[in-house]
Amino acid sequence: MALVVQKYGGSSVADADGIKRVAQRIVATRKAGHSVVVVVSAMGDTTDELHDLAKQVSPLPPARELDMLLTAGERISMALLAMAIANLGLKARSFTGSQAGVITDDAHGKARIIDVTPGRIAGALADGAIPIVAGFQGVSQNGKDVTTLGRGGSDTTAVALAAALGADMCEIYTDVDGVFTADPRIVHTARRIPAISYSEMLEMAACGAKVLQLRCVEYARRYDVPIHVRSSFSSRAGTWVSEATGAGGESMEQAIISGVAHDRSEAKITVADVPDVVGLAAKIFREIAGAGINIDMIVQNVSAATTGLTDISFTLPRADGEAAMAALRAVQADVGFGNLLYDDRIGKVSVVGAGMRSHPGVSATFFGALADAGVNIEMISTSEIRISVVVDENDVDAAVTAAHKAFELDATEVEAVVYGGTGR
Amino acid sequence: MALVVQKYGGSSVADADGIKRVAQRIVATRKAGHSVVVVVSAMGDTTDELHDLAKQVSPLPPARELDMLLTAGERISMALLAMAIANLGLKARSFTGSQAGVITDDAHGKARIIDVTPGRIAGALADGAIPIVAGFQGVSQNGKDVTTLGRGGSDTTAVALAAALGADMCEIYTDVDGVFTADPRIVHTARRIPAISYSEMLEMAACGAKVLQLRCVEYARRYDVPIHVRSSFSSRAGTWVSEATGAGGESMEQAIISGVAHDRSEAKITVADVPDVVGLAAKIFREIAGAGINIDMIVQNVSAATTGLTDISFTLPRADGEAAMAALRAVQADVGFGNLLYDDRIGKVSVVGAGMRSHPGVSATFFGALADAGVNIEMISTSEIRISVVVDENDVDAAVTAAHKAFELDATEVEAVVYGGTGR
Repeated sequence: MALVVQKYGGSSVADADGIKRVAQRIVATRKAGHSVVVVVSAMGDTTDELHDLAKQVSPLPPARELDMLLTAGERISMALLAMAIANLGLKARSFTGSQAGVITDDAHGKARIIDVTPGRIAGALADGAIPIVAGFQGVSQNGKDVTTLGRGGSDTTAVALAAALGADMCEIYTDVDGVFTADPRIVHTARRIPAISYSEMLEMAACGAKVLQLRCVEYARRYDVPIHVRSSFSSRAGTWVSEATGAGGESMEQAIISGVAHDRSEAKITVADVPDVVGLAAKIFREIAGAGINIDMIVQNVSAATTGLTDISFTLPRADGEAAMAALRAVQADVGFGNLLYDDRIGKVSVVGAGMRSHPGVSATFFGALADAGVNIEMISTSEIRISVVVDENDVDAAVTAAHKAFELDATEVEAVVYGGTGR
Repeated sequence: MALVVQKYGGSSVADADGIKRVAQRIVATRKAGHSVVVVVSAMGDTTDELHDLAKQVSPLPPARELDMLLTAGERISMALLAMAIANLGLKARSFTGSQAGVITDDAHGKARIIDVTPGRIAGALADGAIPIVAGFQGVSQNGKDVTTLGRGGSDTTAVALAAALGADMCEIYTDVDGVFTADPRIVHTARRIPAISYSEMLEMAACGAKVLQLRCVEYARRYDVPIHVRSSFSSRAGTWVSEATGAGGESMEQAIISGVAHDRSEAKITVADVPDVVGLAAKIFREIAGAGINIDMIVQNVSAATTGLTDISFTLPRADGEAAMAALRAVQADVGFGNLLYDDRIGKVSVVGAGMRSHPGVSATFFGALADAGVNIEMISTSEIRISVVVDENDVDAAVTAAHKAFELDATEVEAVVYGGTGR
């Protein structure tokens, strides 16, 4: 008998029927002999609707009040889910983030979890009840105010609770079958990845794979909580995210590349003709950081010896493009660069795989595949287990497809076996 | 400078425009130099919509979870109201019932307030912020669970907070101009009552006047909190509910009858041919009480000496009619009464006024007016300051109109002066 934390996303509890279906799944888990703690998001579009209401009364609502407002969403879904479970004959009890002991800092709208003290959750379990916990929310340590955790917050709540309760696993239920070798909307032959390591999943998430948020995977790695990402609409196994050995070990060793991720949310800024003087690059990036903007890739060309000038390019979220350009223009005279170029018609394509550590030639294969597909590479960046390129936005699909094929990730007759494996 | 608790009902904050209008009124009160604490209900039909959702997932939702669900309603309205006030340049901070220190018993759905410890509210006031408190909700003393106060709960929250904070007054904003001498939909010449005593208001509320709930008036009387019931859609003075001397004293002394109330929500049960034996009536009403049903009026006819049998009639909420009949049928053989009659086509009409204590002949005037209007009286009950009659449901309007006219409550040329008076 295991202790399982199950997290259900908004699409799984979009309406009363969805809530009843999820209740049945939870009851089935209990009847299979497991203890269950449930974390639930707000129903369907509730959070967006509440955001709309806020905009109608204030163009810039105070963050504390926005958190108070948004947390009404999970309050509704968790109470309904508890009712639906009770209607199936089992005891269920809903808990707000505060009641569940999710203690955060004071950063409303993007609070970080400081501590989890799940005394009431443990009490409910001991009492034979199924605790239903509001995802995405907590209570601030100092102000005792309601906070929200920001994007991916419900996944993080689930993993944090699993860690604090010493759960055997954390199941993240969503509307897809798991993590795929590429976005199936682009690559129809993409396969579900049965098992992936925390490090690879972190790279995939950072490079645009949207199934799991970076933050929840970081938390899971830190506390070694195995995650099972799966669909709430089927009973198929999904993707296990855990330590590198993963599902029986052998399947993960076989894969040089686990998957191909892409991201169309970035823009590129090029600071042209920067005098090649010590400290100028630092000055430029200090400006960007001062504006609260996170940058992703940075490329500096070798200084042209004849001119003493160099170009520095970097990528950043498109949403921050304007703010970054304004910040840079303000220091143009001071830094003495020549020109500023902004390009938001780019895309990033990344191949991720722990196997590339021991397999030379991955970049040659990747770049060769792109060349064969006629895709021009604008920027390159690498980590130990990832190679990312920036390409023209219009070339993203072709690049993803070419890389997926080059690393032999396309589904074959083997797929059925892959689907049959349940990881751990 | 006064400390004012203002309560806004669901119809006042039905949409974003309503919330912005209420925010302006709150800001105006602050700018007039007063300290303000606001209690707010859920927006418009939110509570009904949440009830509907609950029904969709469970025919009989657990009371604890229903409370968790319903309290999402005030959470939304209070956060939006705080945002709207902040947008007008003042500090506002929303608080749940729990955060505001509204401590209740464990009776989910109809919790009673045990204590109010408004430390955070006082802190917000000291900090120059306007506290916005969720009405209708609290936290249970033992379980630390979210509770709701049941019907009229938000009014009670407001009065309880006003008492705990030692506020100078509690303003209850609603969608009518105050308490009227009769329902203006029936009596077009009904006048707003500028001031009324707690006792009279209690009788009015108990007899069907819907503007204020019995419970909130009881609380106000116990802690001597003056209530000002008024419209959030106008700036006119409403009705002051306070100690008997009220608004300058003289106006209340003039009125023998403050108002005429009516109630169409009751039914009448007649237990016929009850043997006139000691203890049988007690047995009958023990059965009714055992079924959790509150009865209102009771009339027992004098026993007919020739038969040794008597009839007992009583009124009760129509909603409880079936349950009461079933309970009585179950003891028919044991008690030995002859017949059970059920009539839900009745209405209760009451005249209420502290002046009737010192003015004899009120009942003669009342019954005479009903007779002249051709209205037959089925039952009569009285208190020190009230006379109620049960009549045929179809006669209610005629009875209210006749009584209103007989006690000279119809608006005359004096009305403008009445409207001009602001009470205290």
